[in-house]
Amino acid sequence: MRVIGIDPGLRNLGWGVIDVHGARISHVANGICHSDSGTDLARRLAALHAQLTEVFRLHAPEAAAVEHTFVNKDAVATLKLGQARGIALLVPAQFGLEVGEYAPNAVKKTVVGVGHAAKVQIDHMVRLHLPGARIAGADAADALAIAICHAHHCQSAGRLQDALRRAAG
Amino acid sequence: MRVIGIDPGLRNLGWGVIDVHGARISHVANGICHSDSGTDLARRLAALHAQLTEVFRLHAPEAAAVEHTFVNKDAVATLKLGQARGIALLVPAQFGLEVGEYAPNAVKKTVVGVGHAAKVQIDHMVRLHLPGARIAGADAADALAIAICHAHHCQSAGRLQDALRRAAG
Repeated sequence: MRVIGIDPGLRNLGWGVIDVHGARISHVANGICHSDSGTDLARRLAALHAQLTEVFRLHAPEAAAVEHTFVNKDAVATLKLGQARGIALLVPAQFGLEVGEYAPNAVKKTVVGVGHAAKVQIDHMVRLHLPGARIAGADAADALAIAICHAHHCQSAGRLQDALRRAAG
Repeated sequence: MRVIGIDPGLRNLGWGVIDVHGARISHVANGICHSDSGTDLARRLAALHAQLTEVFRLHAPEAAAVEHTFVNKDAVATLKLGQARGIALLVPAQFGLEVGEYAPNAVKKTVVGVGHAAKVQIDHMVRLHLPGARIAGADAADALAIAICHAHHCQSAGRLQDALRRAAG
């Protein structure tokens, strides 16, 4: 199964694609979609949409996951991030995929083992999980962590279904 | 000039299209794009995107305006609205249009004359501006008000440019 993880952001939208074969995962590609802060918001969203659509065309993921946005007291920042997140959710849906959503702490707990890991730890563990991968930046590392988290949860769900089937059979 | 106004919302996204000839405006069409609260967020955004894209294909607006979202202390609601607003901004940009953005009070001031008008006043004034129009609902009336506001501001900007040109000539 090919999984894409997306770390939404208006300026930098990270993405990372991995292949999952049973318990083994391997790196496919990662990168960052950019939008220029000098242009107007609508055009920035269209630029992100076009770039992310191209990523989906190129790498044809079969599953997708997006980080739950951390909402804070800065309503203007939350709104801005919400708009970028809308694009991160829209593109997979346009390719017919369901989108898994994970809180940042759930991603950290899966990849690092603790819910309050620092950025540098995530980066380190992602490199450990995906040896040899050249990672485009912190947002791409986060996106790969989200993909790894989704792969892990899908496997757990699969194992649970298998166990239930065996119990019923 | 054909102008579309959009009132973003995740459940109900209002739109209204008017034609502007000098100081005269006339109604073209209006409606509400819906997304089902029972389905997941990504699919809801894709449904809104598909419906709004169809509106643009059918009515071919040449200018677009979206209401500035009112950000409040409810961060979760702000994030949700931001995601829907991302779609409302994306679609016009995908059709090559710049998007005017107006605060709710600016829209009310243009259409009703005061910045703190009630919903029912906006609805009334929109019907007065666009006699005979069948309006699909409150969100569509708001969208038509945004379109009227944008038409008014484009005209003011045009008159200003004319005056500057005359003063320079």
